[in-house]
This record gives sequence, C-alpha cells and structure tokens, in this order.
Amino acid sequence: MTKSTVWTKSNLLDLHDYSKEEIEMILETAKSFKEISSRQVKKVPALRGKTIVTLFFEPSTRTRASFELAAKRLSADTINIASSASSITKGESIVDTAKNIEAMNVDLIIVRHGSAGVPRVLAQNLKSSVVNAGDGCRSHPTQALLDMFTIVEEKREIKGLNVTIVGDILHSRVARSNMIGLIKLGANVTVCGPSTLMPIGIESYGVKVSYNVDEAIKDADVIMLLRLQLERQKEKFLPSVREYARKFGINNNRLAKAKSDVLIMHPGPTNRGVELSADVADGARSVILNQVTNGVAVRMAVLYLLLGVKKESKK
Amino acid sequence: MTKSTVWTKSNLLDLHDYSKEEIEMILETAKSFKEISSRQVKKVPALRGKTIVTLFFEPSTRTRASFELAAKRLSADTINIASSASSITKGESIVDTAKNIEAMNVDLIIVRHGSAGVPRVLAQNLKSSVVNAGDGCRSHPTQALLDMFTIVEEKREIKGLNVTIVGDILHSRVARSNMIGLIKLGANVTVCGPSTLMPIGIESYGVKVSYNVDEAIKDADVIMLLRLQLERQKEKFLPSVREYARKFGINNNRLAKAKSDVLIMHPGPTNRGVELSADVADGARSVILNQVTNGVAVRMAVLYLLLGVKKESKK
Amino acid sequence: MTKSTVWTKSNLLDLHDYSKEEIEMILETAKSFKEISSRQVKKVPALRGKTIVTLFFEPSTRTRASFELAAKRLSADTINIASSASSITKGESIVDTAKNIEAMNVDLIIVRHGSAGVPRVLAQNLKSSVVNAGDGCRSHPTQALLDMFTIVEEKREIKGLNVTIVGDILHSRVARSNMIGLIKLGANVTVCGPSTLMPIGIESYGVKVSYNVDEAIKDADVIMLLRLQLERQKEKFLPSVREYARKFGINNNRLAKAKSDVLIMHPGPTNRGVELSADVADGARSVILNQVTNGVAVRMAVLYLLLGVKKESKK
Repeated sequence: MTKSTVWTKSNLLDLHDYSKEEIEMILETAKSFKEISSRQVKKVPALRGKTIVTLFFEPSTRTRASFELAAKRLSADTINIASSASSITKGESIVDTAKNIEAMNVDLIIVRHGSAGVPRVLAQNLKSSVVNAGDGCRSHPTQALLDMFTIVEEKREIKGLNVTIVGDILHSRVARSNMIGLIKLGANVTVCGPSTLMPIGIESYGVKVSYNVDEAIKDADVIMLLRLQLERQKEKFLPSVREYARKFGINNNRLAKAKSDVLIMHPGPTNRGVELSADVADGARSVILNQVTNGVAVRMAVLYLLLGVKKESKK
Repeated sequence: MTKSTVWTKSNLLDLHDYSKEEIEMILETAKSFKEISSRQVKKVPALRGKTIVTLFFEPSTRTRASFELAAKRLSADTINIASSASSITKGESIVDTAKNIEAMNVDLIIVRHGSAGVPRVLAQNLKSSVVNAGDGCRSHPTQALLDMFTIVEEKREIKGLNVTIVGDILHSRVARSNMIGLIKLGANVTVCGPSTLMPIGIESYGVKVSYNVDEAIKDADVIMLLRLQLERQKEKFLPSVREYARKFGINNNRLAKAKSDVLIMHPGPTNRGVELSADVADGARSVILNQVTNGVAVRMAVLYLLLGVKKESKK
Repeated sequence: MTKSTVWTKSNLLDLHDYSKEEIEMILETAKSFKEISSRQVKKVPALRGKTIVTLFFEPSTRTRASFELAAKRLSADTINIASSASSITKGESIVDTAKNIEAMNVDLIIVRHGSAGVPRVLAQNLKSSVVNAGDGCRSHPTQALLDMFTIVEEKREIKGLNVTIVGDILHSRVARSNMIGLIKLGANVTVCGPSTLMPIGIESYGVKVSYNVDEAIKDADVIMLLRLQLERQKEKFLPSVREYARKFGINNNRLAKAKSDVLIMHPGPTNRGVELSADVADGARSVILNQVTNGVAVRMAVLYLLLGVKKESKK
C-alpha cells in the first residue's frame, strides 16, 4: 500500500466492493487506532460533533458495543436504535425508517439485519454513510477486517498463508466475507465442514473444499472456526451436535497434528465443547480475545475513513 | 417578537400555556440551532454539565432519538429510561419515580405517557424542568412547534395562512397542539375527518370543521395529515381503512385540485396508501423529512431556553 | 482517617473486604463529589477517556442510572449491557461474556446479578476493575456506602449511633452490607423483622435481634427500612402483607414513640402503606431522597478511587 492512496469510499457494505489497497489501508489505519485504546486516556477528538446511529434489527450486544465504543473513542455522538423499539412495528418500511433517522443530520448508520441486501438498499437511498454490521447469510465485513488485522498482527502478512475455515460455511456471513478478503490479500483458503452445510459451487470463490478436518488443518497457518447455530440441527442440516463436535470440533488431540504455530480464531460467542474444546479456546494458540480487542480498532478505522469522505448528494 | 423578550418558562407542557411571543421566540432560537446541525462539527457547549433524562412510558424511537440528539448536540449528559425497565413495575407511583430521578440532580425530564396530564402532575411536584413529549390524546407541543417552524421556513409567516388538518382529530395530540399554536400565530385552521373521529364542540378552538376533504384542501396553504392509528378500526371508529383512504387519503388526483404551492405535512410514521399515497409523500410539495430535521433544531431551542431559567424552589 | 492513606483496592465486591479507613476514605471523597453535582456545570474531566460498562443481569433502572450518571459526571465513556440482550442467551458463560467485554479495553465493569458471588468470580478472572451493584441476597456495597454517607451528613459520625434495620433481613443484601459497614464504623446495630425472615445465627455479625419493632426503634438514631419483596408472600415467608404492615410498618403513631431526631431511611422503591406510611416517607425525618442524591456522589467516589489504581496483571 502506498501511503498516498486517497480514500474514496463512503459505505462499507461488502468486501467485494473494496480493493486490496483499500483493505490494506483500513488495516494500516487500525494499527494506529489500536494504540489509542491502550492509553490511559482512550479518546481522540477525530469525529467530534459527528452523529453515528446503530440500527440493529437483530440483537447483538457485542457487535453493537464494539461499534459504540469505537465511535465514542473517536468522540462521535451515538444513538442506539433496536428494531423491537423502532417504528418498523408501526408498519413503516425500512427505507422510510432510515430516511427519517438520516433526516436528523445523522452522518453514518451502522445496520444489522437478518435479510441479505438490506444495508445496500439503505446505502442506495441515503446520503448518510452506511456500514454493514451483518446482513443475513451474506456479509459481515468488519468481522473479516478484524480477523485479517489479527492475522497480520501475528503473522506479519497474509500473502501465502494457508487459512482453513471450519464449520457451517453455507449460512456464514463471516466465512463469506473472510473468503473474499483473504483471497484478495493472497491467502490460500480452504473451507471445511459437513457436506450439508457446504454451498454448491463454493469453489468459484477460489477456495479449496474439504470434508475432513484433520486433512484441512494439517498445513494451516490459521484455523478459523465458525459459530455453530445450534438451531440448525432442528432444521435437519446436522445429524447431531455431538456428531458435529466429534467430526469437526478442534481439541488438543486434533491440534497436535497441526503446525505448532497455527492460530486458532473464532468470531464468538463460542460453543465450548462443540466448535472447539475449552483448553483450545483458552490455549496458547488462541487469539480469540485479541480478535475482540482488534474489533474496536478496526471499527474506529472504518468510521474514521468513511466519515472523511464527503458523500455525493443523491437523488 | 421583540428580541428583548425575557424567557421565564421552565416547563413545556402544553402550548396553551405559552404566549404568541414565547412561541415565536422558540422558533427564532431554533433557526440558529438548525444551522449547527448542518455543520461539520454539530455540537456546541451550551448545556455542558447539564443532565437530561428521557422518561418514556410509551415507546417512540424517533421522538426519543430526536430529543436525545438535541441534548447531545448541546453537550448535555443524557440518560434514557423506558417504562418497562423502570420501577413502575415494582408498584411505585409515577411521581415517586420522577422524584427519585430528580434527586440525582437531574436538570430536565422529558416525559411521554399514555395518560393525559401526567407531565403536568410531574411538573407540579418537581423542581426539575419538565418537557411533555406526548401525553395521551392531549398534547405534543414540540411536534406542533416543529410543524410551525417548518411552515415558517417555507411560507415566511403563519399569519393569514389556511391550514387544513386531516384525520383522526378526536384522538390526536398532534392536532390539538397544532390547533392551539397555529391559531395563536394567526392561521385559519380547518379540521377535517370522519364524523366519528371529530370531537364534539371542536369549533370552540376557533377552527372550521369539514367532513369533505376536497373542499377542505381547496384553498389550503398547508395540508397537515395525521397518522391513522390502525387499531382504531377495531374500536369501531372506522368502517374500514380502505374506506378511510378513499374518502380522506391524499393522492395526486386530489392534490391536483389544491393550490400548486400547498405543503404536505405528516408527523410520521406514515401509512403509505392510507393517509397519503407514496408519490405524494415523496413528491415536491412534501416537507415530511424537513419536519424531522427541524424537530432536532426546535428541541434544541426548547431545552436551551428552559434550562436557562432558574426554577423556583418548590415545597 | 489520615489524609495520607494510599488507596490500593481495584474492586468493590463486599464491604467485608474493606477496612474502616477505606470506607471513611470513600465517604470523604464522596463529599467533594457531591458538591460537583450541585454546580451549574456538573462535570469534571477526572475519568475522561476511561470506559465503564454496566452489565446488569437483573433489571434496575435507578441503580443503573445512578452509576451511569456518576460515570458521565466524571467524563467517562459508558456502555450499558442488559442481560436479556447479551450473548448469555447464546449459551456463553458469564465469565466468557465478561472477558469479551474486558477485551474491548474496558476499565471497569459494574455488575448486578441474581446469584451471590458472581461479581467476585468475575473479579478473579478479569484485569478490569469490578464493582458489585448487587448480587443475590449477599451484598450491595454502594447502597451501604450511600446510606452511611447520608447518616454522617445528618449525624456527623456513625460511632456510637443506634441503627435499627427493619424488614426482611433474610433476603436483604442491603441489610447485610449495612450491618458490615455500620459495625466497622462503630454503630450499635439492631435487626428487626418477622422470625421467618430472620437468618439463623445473625448475631454473629455483632448485631442485636428484635422481633418487636416498637422496642427496636425506641432508642434508635436511625431507622433503616428494607423493601419488602411482595412475592415473598407467595413463598410462604409472610402470613400477609397487611399483617406485616400492621406489625412492622412505620407510621406516625409508632414514630411518635421514637427519638424526635431519628432518621428514616429506605433504599427504594418504597411500598407506601407497607414498610412505612406515606406521611412518614414524605415527613421531616425522612432522608429517602437524600439517599438517592448521595448515591451519585458515593458512586463517583468509588469509580474515581478504583480507577486510580493500576490493577496487577493476572494469570
């Protein structure tokens, strides 16, 4: 990345829309913001007088808190709006709701929604910047960015690394955003999980597919575990959670056959005893809590860069 | 309004209590606050170190957010208390709850309640300032103020204008507060709606009554639509929503017979296809989103003026 | 207390852990913070750039608001997390949840939980400071501190005072924390209530036990009433609420036989007509609202002192 890159994006909807250089610029910017959160006074005036709204149609305490802290450490004013409390229940459309929020001179809206595509529809209809905090099974770009930041922190660069993503690939916006980002940055990505949870045609992303976790992690530099939505079992995607844990769960036995410096990652919250054993989660190779710490830094970088761009007036 | 008017009010409960000059002073003050919200740094230190609480016994995301943003842009500290979470559920009276909140050295309480009169009871029992954010079917003074601000912005002055309010006049605190305010400022107000939703004796407010929307909007400078509470149909006030839309809904056909520069207003959230068609809501004469923008400015002015007054110590 | 005492505590879990000198240092510090809340600008930059999280697994509007205001008046950034919205519901353990919150570089976590001991478990596992805002039937140390502050304010010192605590001693964390604190500061404490609500062996705290409220309050300098959890009646601890009110409720008749300058205290919310009559609650000897005011000052002192200590890195 050249330092002279000029930032032009005003929304973050999907890493698909971002170039390798733009992703690297976020990671670079996040590095300096991470330092701020380790100070005695964790606050800079960069976004003083800006208004940022979290608009969450799915509950998520930790993602909301991470964004809210990122905004507050940049001195922005924040307002939280949760769907259950919103006028959605009064029969108004999502675009109408967002336009009303925007009309209060809101600079940036962070949106999470159970349906893929909602953040993009909002971005197309708003002058405020929009950040996707997770939409359906499609994208979760800030999660992928914080994952990449964590990998770079531990491994210096992503290019040439073997990254294995294990779990319910079919329903995972975390997997999809990571595949896109990691491949742009030059990683070799393998996805691994039960065949019922593997999307048809997933190879078109440029990833290798495996159904055998022991093989898939053998040469991995990074093992990225996905949270198993336990309710999928009821939907018949899984024979049983115990069977899943036996076949795909990472425990110390399994890990003994992987590289000695492999990183264990998980977007949280973990199901200990399912995706990974407690000793792996708390073990020396786990960077799960580092991911949480880095989440604030990466989100600070995203808010800072997006709000530095004057969005073109629309419609 | 003379600039030398000295502000003396410490509560905003009902526009009935305010003189023409006081209303004009709020609108004048809001003009300068509106400019602040369009700046890059939307924040002034006017209320730094003041504590403002929103105490909402009815849910309302947008009104709460508008007040909260107004307070934050004036640098006040804000706390949100929603009824479901409050000790009301522990059997304490509303006055007790409010006195406990006040005891934390709270400067101003913004209250919304389903029962008319609650804000006034609180004001009578508290030293903190009280702002009514909507009480039952009685008053919603900041909504009326932002509506008047929007009209003045578009039409320069309210005096002599023909304003037609259409909808469920009987249950509307927005209608009542607007009637009082608009008449004080010299407008000719007509109210129009189904006879089952028209209060008996409404003429005593000094308004004209119409049951025919085409006639009522013919000479109007402003058409103010009220949100139809769809649950009223179950209560037998309405034959059917479709029938209401046909008889009172504003669409382009109907609008074609009105003045070419008539303003379309709605307090939101709109029921598109009921009170007005989507093309009218999004059309050139609609100032619905301007109302939302102006809401923040007017609320900033109200908070600023009320907190400039040292309330007399009571009892 | 000598002014030169050096503060060393980084958690507030139970007053049992605090010395007489430490309690006095909090009360002394709170005195200067109380003055801040009476200023026009109720805000000092003492904790600017610190991050404080309220993590409440039991709802409590007033305690949460008091802590939140305390933090804001010290200029800290605050985030509220309520249990229902947290990932606890996703099957994660409380320690995991707290470690994830801490990983966002959070300085201090204020926790309330229905089970005794949860704040201590968190403190043992976290580098962030932990403040207990109430755990099960065990401790509510900031309530006891604000009660002691209020007594000192009215009576100059606690040493030698007769304090009678009336109510459901068995289930009351307020009673337990006050007994511990008051005895450390030299008060003579009597506990009084129905025998079914009196813990066996309570005398080991160094208190006198009485089942007759008239005798128990006769020589009291302070009467501290506990909130009756009305649901206890269903659990058969109480014959009836009316019977409780008749036997233990404080009304003017009963109060007439107590000292003329006795203080009436209650942690709120009160059940008027049960623990005390309305005229006693609002009467000249009641300092119930002073307790609420002092709560903010005491919590400011606690946050300020704890965050001045650099916690040792753990594990």
